[in-house]
Amino acid sequence: MITVALAKGALLKDSVARFSEAGLDFSAVLDQDNRHLMVPSVCGRARALLVRNGDVPVYVAYGQAQLGVVGYDVLKEHQMPVAQLVDLGFGGCRMALAVKASSGYQRSTDLPPHCRVASKFTNCAREFFNELDLPVELVHLTGSVELGPITGMAEAIVDLVATGRTLRDNGLVAIEDLFQSTARLVGHPLALRLDCGELQSIVDSIRDQNDQHKESV
Amino acid sequence: MITVALAKGALLKDSVARFSEAGLDFSAVLDQDNRHLMVPSVCGRARALLVRNGDVPVYVAYGQAQLGVVGYDVLKEHQMPVAQLVDLGFGGCRMALAVKASSGYQRSTDLPPHCRVASKFTNCAREFFNELDLPVELVHLTGSVELGPITGMAEAIVDLVATGRTLRDNGLVAIEDLFQSTARLVGHPLALRLDCGELQSIVDSIRDQNDQHKESV
Repeated sequence: MITVALAKGALLKDSVARFSEAGLDFSAVLDQDNRHLMVPSVCGRARALLVRNGDVPVYVAYGQAQLGVVGYDVLKEHQMPVAQLVDLGFGGCRMALAVKASSGYQRSTDLPPHCRVASKFTNCAREFFNELDLPVELVHLTGSVELGPITGMAEAIVDLVATGRTLRDNGLVAIEDLFQSTARLVGHPLALRLDCGELQSIVDSIRDQNDQHKESV
Repeated sequence: MITVALAKGALLKDSVARFSEAGLDFSAVLDQDNRHLMVPSVCGRARALLVRNGDVPVYVAYGQAQLGVVGYDVLKEHQMPVAQLVDLGFGGCRMALAVKASSGYQRSTDLPPHCRVASKFTNCAREFFNELDLPVELVHLTGSVELGPITGMAEAIVDLVATGRTLRDNGLVAIEDLFQSTARLVGHPLALRLDCGELQSIVDSIRDQNDQHKESV
């Protein structure tokens, strides 16, 4: 039985579509009334685990799911030992450094040393500021990071930006990008090595669709 | 201006009621259409920050909020330097160790050494197992911890249990309690020390209501 870890939320619909084209129909997870966290595919060959973003790499790393779909931002933040197989292209956003529009800061190096930076992605932020050799105090928040600068707790935030609307609504402006993120197909390394072709055919099919998607753009 | 950090979710309604009785009316945060994260009180003397559970101690510890309401479970997990002022009594639940009902484990010491335990509260779980001197591998998950035993990733979970329905629905059973949790009024230690009476009168008022609530039970 193949198990696929899918992230609830923004990536779910596209993830289901890709697996569906590869022959595994998990569309039951899109049903608004679905309350199950483990959903079999229509063919019965596979099942989907419906978990939170940050938990996808955990289930794949521990081998409870052989495949999974999750954003590159999560993979970079959590650094779990999973194999990145395909860049799926959807779920595009960027990890950005943002400040109050009224602050006058134009770039990361304008930030005063030892200032506070709030983020849900403190590992990504730490790496970025270490490379700049700019010492900052990172404050880990679990949500609504834009409140950091508004309340005066932090000079800046590091957060995911898709449309930029949340930033604008809160008087913030992105001044630098750390990296771009898209959804990735990931796999359990050992499961891929021991695979008799079943996993590989799914991965190949998703990779082929991906190439077609790219060509059609 | 007094700032109060309130946790979104299950504790919000009761938190607002307690502050309302103490003269600060934040009922606007309960409005379903409210999208603001910072809401002034009706009297204009104070404002509420509407943040996630785990972020309440952060805003209070950094002094961006002088007061806050959050569950004891979060305080114990995050160990931020905030003053615990009043046990508010509501939001009761317990942190429990749970296993598959079919596993046959009756108590924590039945668990095999080096087994996996999944939890959102890995600090609480670590302390518990350290005291037992039982070495386990803790797996940090961010949601739906009950999937851990179901998928076979973990032998047990440590999680908050209120009614026990989620456990039952997933074929799990609680075998031991780590601690009881209720909502707590917390404060920024320095703000309380420098207070000219304004904060103290709110704290006193909430403490008095609390005593009355207890007496009426």
